[in-house]
Amino acid sequence: MRCEVLAVGTELLLGQIVDTNSAWIGEHLALAGIDCHLQTKVGDNLGRIVECLRSALERSDAVICCGGLGPTQDDITREAIAEVMGVALRRDPALIEVIRSMFSARGREMAESNLRQADVPDGATVIPQTRGTAPGLVCPVGDRVVYAVPGVPYEMEDMLQRAVLPDLQARAGTTATILSRTLRTWGLAESTLAEVVAPRVEALDRAGGNPTIAFLASGIEGIKVRVTAKAATAATARDLLDREEAELRALLGPLVFGVDEATMEDAVARLLVQQGLTLGLAESLTGGLVASRLVNVVGSSGWFRGSVVAYSPEVKFGVLGVRPGPVVSEQAALQMAEGARRVLGSDVALSVTGVAGPAELDGRPPGTVFIALALPERPAEVLGVRLPGDRDRVRQFSAISALDLLRRRLLERAGVTQGDPAPSGRPPG
Amino acid sequence: MRCEVLAVGTELLLGQIVDTNSAWIGEHLALAGIDCHLQTKVGDNLGRIVECLRSALERSDAVICCGGLGPTQDDITREAIAEVMGVALRRDPALIEVIRSMFSARGREMAESNLRQADVPDGATVIPQTRGTAPGLVCPVGDRVVYAVPGVPYEMEDMLQRAVLPDLQARAGTTATILSRTLRTWGLAESTLAEVVAPRVEALDRAGGNPTIAFLASGIEGIKVRVTAKAATAATARDLLDREEAELRALLGPLVFGVDEATMEDAVARLLVQQGLTLGLAESLTGGLVASRLVNVVGSSGWFRGSVVAYSPEVKFGVLGVRPGPVVSEQAALQMAEGARRVLGSDVALSVTGVAGPAELDGRPPGTVFIALALPERPAEVLGVRLPGDRDRVRQFSAISALDLLRRRLLERAGVTQGDPAPSGRPPG
Repeated sequence: MRCEVLAVGTELLLGQIVDTNSAWIGEHLALAGIDCHLQTKVGDNLGRIVECLRSALERSDAVICCGGLGPTQDDITREAIAEVMGVALRRDPALIEVIRSMFSARGREMAESNLRQADVPDGATVIPQTRGTAPGLVCPVGDRVVYAVPGVPYEMEDMLQRAVLPDLQARAGTTATILSRTLRTWGLAESTLAEVVAPRVEALDRAGGNPTIAFLASGIEGIKVRVTAKAATAATARDLLDREEAELRALLGPLVFGVDEATMEDAVARLLVQQGLTLGLAESLTGGLVASRLVNVVGSSGWFRGSVVAYSPEVKFGVLGVRPGPVVSEQAALQMAEGARRVLGSDVALSVTGVAGPAELDGRPPGTVFIALALPERPAEVLGVRLPGDRDRVRQFSAISALDLLRRRLLERAGVTQGDPAPSGRPPG
Repeated sequence: MRCEVLAVGTELLLGQIVDTNSAWIGEHLALAGIDCHLQTKVGDNLGRIVECLRSALERSDAVICCGGLGPTQDDITREAIAEVMGVALRRDPALIEVIRSMFSARGREMAESNLRQADVPDGATVIPQTRGTAPGLVCPVGDRVVYAVPGVPYEMEDMLQRAVLPDLQARAGTTATILSRTLRTWGLAESTLAEVVAPRVEALDRAGGNPTIAFLASGIEGIKVRVTAKAATAATARDLLDREEAELRALLGPLVFGVDEATMEDAVARLLVQQGLTLGLAESLTGGLVASRLVNVVGSSGWFRGSVVAYSPEVKFGVLGVRPGPVVSEQAALQMAEGARRVLGSDVALSVTGVAGPAELDGRPPGTVFIALALPERPAEVLGVRLPGDRDRVRQFSAISALDLLRRRLLERAGVTQGDPAPSGRPPG
């Protein structure tokens, strides 16, 4: 089964919007076991959309057409598909009612143009809309098929998962369920991580290649290890994923900080809540970045006290009680952490000082970073690292490195000690 | 002159990387006055790359082929273009020397595979590499042309501007220079902004449509007004842009916070430096976000003292001296700003408190935000706004709204008072 993606919208060609939909669809087609060899962007031009659809249907069994389903005159995907099918559009009375009731439920006036969204090519079936006003369409063309979905990512993703992918799998005669799970890691370069995981990759290969393992470098957020399993039922696929996750965790230990969408700050938050600890920060180099990540976790007001962003030396000395001297140093980092714990009244404090560049500071080159951590029952400790990249990258790496140090120590404090290497603060890749 | 874009890479189809190159190229082709009707993504497969190039050359005068020029076995763009040209690849001795010297200058070992990057289809000319090891190629195919550029955005953008766009314009017989300038605005919705600017759009239309004006909604960063001018020389085009910028600024006044790449924090930084003022922050709702934007400005250590991220009420009371009571209120915001000025020893202080959601706080619904500003010679003032969106959006809108309030007041302080409407803190769009 081959499926192409056609993204429709002049704003995509002009670069006013980056087409992220095709990438998302490509990823999910691959996970569903469906080949996708071509993805095309075309403008809001009837002749060219028709031409693209016809060429795609010559090469492939299915086309997912994304965008151009809105209410305005330049939304012409419906017209283009009807032309390719060789049929007329008819206005669907049931859809008219749905659209009218959506507007009245939101207490908004409905412009008549919105009823264009009730137009359906003869012979097509409707994918009901649950998140927006535009329904999707399943449009047979001979033994092939065109799916039309809205260009709004939130609406598109829902329709893909709910209707398009299951329909494609049914057409492909795929009775198998394919599921995947992503382990997010921090602390090793991709090549080193691959060496650590190599025994599992080889064992799986020997056993028939199910599940499979793939590595995805994710820049500042580390390296993802994705496990994909295929089975007759979702329950069996989940079981395969559970078992492989356990094998990988035995190899990777605390390098794994989260699963699927869980972030480094989610991991820190969970551990702080479990251990009943509050957190305060002292940030120089990162300038509030660590704090702004933490407050994105729902419920952070329960354990996050705040941060003293001590960007000028005077604030470090005056507010945090750092003793005058070089501010990029082990000593300054330790005193910042102790000062933050005292000033903010937290159980735990984390501090970051360093040189973002472009110039040197205190005789230290850009990328020099000190991270200190004060935990309740032991002396404060400091980690010195050298990070690559420009100002923004040094800051981003510092922020996640600091959170990772805290996560590692909280894991150890909870008794999770697997003899793993000490955190290096080294960025992956 | 019609030009298509072909982005090469299996990782693009699998969604492991989002193709931002095509969007960037599309934008710059439009600015250069060259039509781009189709953009395609294809994987690292020789037959399919060849097929895509042939179809594109049937429809269009030129193809920009992006990616697949690296040193590894799956980088096969050179081979595919040679096949379409019907010629052989030859290894260019001059390029071999350039690549060898790049490695030795960086003190790195060169794997032999890197010499594949010296392969050139017979009859193609080389675009010298200045930022990476892969050269670009200009490959004639009959009266048409294929350009090959690397997939790394930083390398691709340089080659496009230095070689590909000028070559395309020469082929198109375009002797005109097209330049554009973007005015970045904050404070009005797109439709209102369009009404304000309408007299200029109409005047330009009547006068022949040069320069032209376009609006680009940029989400949290406001609405951009882009002016594009065409002239026989760059100097004349710049003159047209200068005159139109003056006309637009007369209509928009301080709604314009920056030109081209200048950010809201750049504008704030420039005004603080001009007026010799230091800045301190007290952030609750935004949790360090305002601080982390400010420290991205090079030289911020000259005027930015720091921020007290007072996320818990106790830190507001204990560190900033806020009087116990509701923390989402005009009073709390004012006392936070005064406290930040005192604790951080700054001339100016800005504070933000509010409800990010999902739950209410102090009986206030999510999106309720208070921003206070303490300037040297006047009593502190407070601005209350209601912002839409989820947690992250409320925070992002709050951060830029706070910076905009500071910018407006610093402009007034410098004597720039154009009778514009008071800042509304209302997000655009």
